[in-house]
Amino acid sequence: MFHPLDPLSPAEHRKASQILRNYHAPVPVRFKVIDLLEAPKQDLLAYLQDGKFELQPPPRKAYSYYHRNDDGTLRKATINLATETIESDTEHPESQGPADIDEINRIYNLCNAHPAIQEEIKKLKLPDGAYVTNDPWTYGTDDPNERRRLYQCYMYIVLKDDPEANHYSLPAPFAPIFEANTFELLKIQRLPLGVDAQLDEEMKPWDPVKPVEYSASLLGDSYFRRDLKPLHIVQPQGPSFQIDGRHVSWQKWTFHMGWTVREGPVLNNVFYDGRSLFHRVSMSEMTVPYGDPRSPYHRKQAFDLGDSGFGITSNTLTLGCDCLGHIAYFDGIRTSGSGEPVVMKNVICMHEVDNGIGWKHTNFRNNKASMVRNRQLVIQCTATVMNYEYVLAFVLDQAANLHIEVKATGIVSTMPIRQNTYSPWGTVVAPGVLAANHQHLFCLRIDPALDGVQNSVVYDDLVPVRGEPDLDPFGCAFRVQTVNITQPGGYDLDVSRSRTYRIINPKHINPVSGQPVSYKLHAAPSQMLMMGKQTFNYKQGVFSSRPIWVTKYRDGELWAAGEFTNQSRKDTGMEIWANRKESVENEDVVLWHTFGVTHVTRPEDFPVMPVEVMNVSLKPSSFFELNPSNDVPRSSQSHNQSTMVEHEEVSLAGCGKCCL
Amino acid sequence: MFHPLDPLSPAEHRKASQILRNYHAPVPVRFKVIDLLEAPKQDLLAYLQDGKFELQPPPRKAYSYYHRNDDGTLRKATINLATETIESDTEHPESQGPADIDEINRIYNLCNAHPAIQEEIKKLKLPDGAYVTNDPWTYGTDDPNERRRLYQCYMYIVLKDDPEANHYSLPAPFAPIFEANTFELLKIQRLPLGVDAQLDEEMKPWDPVKPVEYSASLLGDSYFRRDLKPLHIVQPQGPSFQIDGRHVSWQKWTFHMGWTVREGPVLNNVFYDGRSLFHRVSMSEMTVPYGDPRSPYHRKQAFDLGDSGFGITSNTLTLGCDCLGHIAYFDGIRTSGSGEPVVMKNVICMHEVDNGIGWKHTNFRNNKASMVRNRQLVIQCTATVMNYEYVLAFVLDQAANLHIEVKATGIVSTMPIRQNTYSPWGTVVAPGVLAANHQHLFCLRIDPALDGVQNSVVYDDLVPVRGEPDLDPFGCAFRVQTVNITQPGGYDLDVSRSRTYRIINPKHINPVSGQPVSYKLHAAPSQMLMMGKQTFNYKQGVFSSRPIWVTKYRDGELWAAGEFTNQSRKDTGMEIWANRKESVENEDVVLWHTFGVTHVTRPEDFPVMPVEVMNVSLKPSSFFELNPSNDVPRSSQSHNQSTMVEHEEVSLAGCGKCCL
Repeated sequence: MFHPLDPLSPAEHRKASQILRNYHAPVPVRFKVIDLLEAPKQDLLAYLQDGKFELQPPPRKAYSYYHRNDDGTLRKATINLATETIESDTEHPESQGPADIDEINRIYNLCNAHPAIQEEIKKLKLPDGAYVTNDPWTYGTDDPNERRRLYQCYMYIVLKDDPEANHYSLPAPFAPIFEANTFELLKIQRLPLGVDAQLDEEMKPWDPVKPVEYSASLLGDSYFRRDLKPLHIVQPQGPSFQIDGRHVSWQKWTFHMGWTVREGPVLNNVFYDGRSLFHRVSMSEMTVPYGDPRSPYHRKQAFDLGDSGFGITSNTLTLGCDCLGHIAYFDGIRTSGSGEPVVMKNVICMHEVDNGIGWKHTNFRNNKASMVRNRQLVIQCTATVMNYEYVLAFVLDQAANLHIEVKATGIVSTMPIRQNTYSPWGTVVAPGVLAANHQHLFCLRIDPALDGVQNSVVYDDLVPVRGEPDLDPFGCAFRVQTVNITQPGGYDLDVSRSRTYRIINPKHINPVSGQPVSYKLHAAPSQMLMMGKQTFNYKQGVFSSRPIWVTKYRDGELWAAGEFTNQSRKDTGMEIWANRKESVENEDVVLWHTFGVTHVTRPEDFPVMPVEVMNVSLKPSSFFELNPSNDVPRSSQSHNQSTMVEHEEVSLAGCGKCCL
Repeated sequence: MFHPLDPLSPAEHRKASQILRNYHAPVPVRFKVIDLLEAPKQDLLAYLQDGKFELQPPPRKAYSYYHRNDDGTLRKATINLATETIESDTEHPESQGPADIDEINRIYNLCNAHPAIQEEIKKLKLPDGAYVTNDPWTYGTDDPNERRRLYQCYMYIVLKDDPEANHYSLPAPFAPIFEANTFELLKIQRLPLGVDAQLDEEMKPWDPVKPVEYSASLLGDSYFRRDLKPLHIVQPQGPSFQIDGRHVSWQKWTFHMGWTVREGPVLNNVFYDGRSLFHRVSMSEMTVPYGDPRSPYHRKQAFDLGDSGFGITSNTLTLGCDCLGHIAYFDGIRTSGSGEPVVMKNVICMHEVDNGIGWKHTNFRNNKASMVRNRQLVIQCTATVMNYEYVLAFVLDQAANLHIEVKATGIVSTMPIRQNTYSPWGTVVAPGVLAANHQHLFCLRIDPALDGVQNSVVYDDLVPVRGEPDLDPFGCAFRVQTVNITQPGGYDLDVSRSRTYRIINPKHINPVSGQPVSYKLHAAPSQMLMMGKQTFNYKQGVFSSRPIWVTKYRDGELWAAGEFTNQSRKDTGMEIWANRKESVENEDVVLWHTFGVTHVTRPEDFPVMPVEVMNVSLKPSSFFELNPSNDVPRSSQSHNQSTMVEHEEVSLAGCGKCCL
């Protein structure tokens, strides 16, 4: 029997596509997405909280985005797998569904082989053995009247075929545009090579430069540093976690390991020591606006969850590469265009890490040190969205903290630039290569359930007491000023006041502190979207304009920029949900956090950029009566088995290692 | 032969104290500090840059803070160890030197045994076996006319003697004050037990509560979680670093491992791949102001480097507790009151860690993944300043980043509070225990030498282009606005503009990007000191009021709040240096970064608080021509030897682990 939140099984998947095919027969359909439709929260909670499993689980359902091949319109169906019926089927002629793997591959191959594009390539007069490849990009929005489904392919020269050749080091100066229903080439757009949008009068032959490679075979053995000694993580008794289906237990934590094609890993039903913490924690959206205004670059703004998906672009992880130690993997599942299930192996890895000191205190009276190490459970995926990689991790620790960590890596998006030319819109990261400055703005969705789903959100400011000399004769006093959030909406951070948002359960009071039980959000204060309200960048993803959002829970409201982001003209998510007039106090609330990085590119980011790490944490505050990791066994050499490296200290050599 | 920056050897130390004793004979002296006096930078650079070691190293010198026993005045001497002469000897009657170990121990023992204090303790009517101990605190400043050297001892009840008993769980309601030259008890100050400063009319018997313990023996075996499996770091070929004296090489990095009693570990002469990066990187000061205005708590503001020192309070680290893997240790050295050297064993540990993915890219065309792991070198110490612990680490990585990480842990400072009473100044973290809210404000000192010491500091703001429709028809453009810092002074961060400070060498241009070579500071935006300009909190440590400071280098200017912080009435450091009118462009500049945390205490911080982590990084930006970790060998299972954890996935069980 499946957990109601388990991804679809291959058999369920096949059943869903078959039902939908039958429904539309004889018109053939092309599938974009088939995934679990999560049960209404009320039904889920009733089943999960029953605990005795006497209740029937809610029926398994799927949803699908697909096209009928007669009119090509985007449709969405929900399919009841128990009753084998279509429960709803709607047309979305004003929207575009996400990119899917089959579609991308088709555009990719078409672009590589198209005779008109081959003609353009010839003008580059490339050396023998060189060829041109492409990255198909979803089109981005700059016209409210555009209704075609479009891709723009950015073209890259490859001098030498190699599986790891850098496909972004030699950008070519044109970018074909395709219609993705007819698969017709609409235009070959030329790209500017200078500072402004001015185009060369005619395509000039390629001005040769050497690509910057990361391929081990192209670089050759002698290129590599030789003094890195191996480091192994050995767990003689195995890992400390248990897995039952997709239910995971580790160090007082339990959760269900969810996964969707859109979001990648999802933490469901998160408990610590038998107490409910979060109903669902997930990455909800991420957008990457670029700051280069020269056409077509002004359209570069990917919504990497809505336009494609962190799940569907997840890497199949391999042992000994992505993690060290004892690694458990979880699979995902996606659809082919024909509705066949494609199991995506090892898209989530789970393992333990030792993250240094967890807590320590030394009694100065006797120098007796007490300490525990900070063992963590890391649940991780890597999404490859064309050139870029995002490593998303949920990290649990023994102090009941949940950390959400994002590492940005991969290859920056590159564009051609005339040699010895520089641009205000980015950095020249290699000869002939401009990498535009851009932002990555993530939106984390936290659906809390602190001792139950009736929660509130508050924020604390730390403010000095001023002008009360009787109370504060020396002017040193400061205090916490707590503000209750009563209305859905967007809210701000304020570093100058250490503003901290907390989820509270107003009905549960901590007996020690006298305060409502709470978890606080250690936010990542970040520059928000720079584009103004009149821009499509803003209109498509209002979530990116404020760091904190609070909404009242409704089923299906999972994705911050709304359901269909690809070529969208307006946000159908946060913009609507945050403006409803309803109470969010002691209700089923959702807290959203937008954070990210404004990336000014560097040559050091090329060919592949070292990880840029972003961190958000959820930490208990008056949720427990004391340090939850007080019961972690103390760190000892018998348990940890470290090795002393002997060396001679010149200056203290007089005493060797002895005390004087 | 010693490196000019090696700590004093025991023999040198003895020589220094002997010279000073002889100088004052027959008047005896009491030593507080004896440490290396670093050579003038010009002499150091000449020697270090000679490289051929043909130049004589600059002469070894020491400095000492000490008292003559006749008048007790603080004095400072500098001693030339080569010529065996006193080069300078000055009186500082207006200042107090730092606390030293012998002095603290003497006050501690005096307070524990003093008959008048024993009388007070009797009034508590403690149960049999209970006793009262104390923490001697430097006094803090609230009176411009105070010239006595003072300690205030906070008192704690201990019910059961145990080396790990929590000495902060049962605070007693009085706090004796001692004079530290005469060692006279001046007063036993009573402490308020309610919300305001009101005192009980008389000392009442102790109102019994159960202490919250962290002691493994007091808690007993059955208290501990039993499901934490061991995790070992195994390095079959040993570590990747080499140590020669205190010169360390690791993965293209080289540096000298310095150490001072005041700062703890110091990175000197830091090079990457043969290029100079930093002359000296160190923690310069840290202050902890508390927000409780009730006397005597208004005086609680430790300057933990200036008032005592991260070096002198450093723990002797033990194998398998503080680090895993192959650990090298370095020793420190301090003086006893009588001038004898005390070697502090293993005060710095150095080891390698694997910090996950270093960079990764998967070619979506063939799913070929390329990745390197993020090996780091961690240089770490733990300072125990009475109740609190600070874990300070310098972390180097293979992408030429230098991270400075501070973990706050240990036990929050506690004060008594009547049961069932709550306070605006902190949180009740255990029955009868108030933990006041406070700040930790660190000041990192970065003395750069990017391709030489002639450097400048700039900051970059990311700003949208607005109102230029010809340039930016869709309103998406943004660009970097760089501001050169021409004057010493305090500067601000601005998250809303992603403001980033960079150290540049204006004369060295990166051939790829066309920009001056630089390192950028990934700052930790933090709430600054909340106390106003009229307060001693502000006057004593102006560095804590602004996040960024730029000064022109001068010898001896190492400590942000000035040389003598203990009971100081004004800052003699940054306040002066930042106000000099001099050029800091293409000069020998110093960049300082103040960061920290405003700590609203939680029951979860008690008895010992889980680490609160702060991170600052220095990252190359146009310093190199490409990713410096491009040459790290690719991650492979043969090198990493991970283990697969098998488990059955219920929902995808139809396919086992196969692809469909």
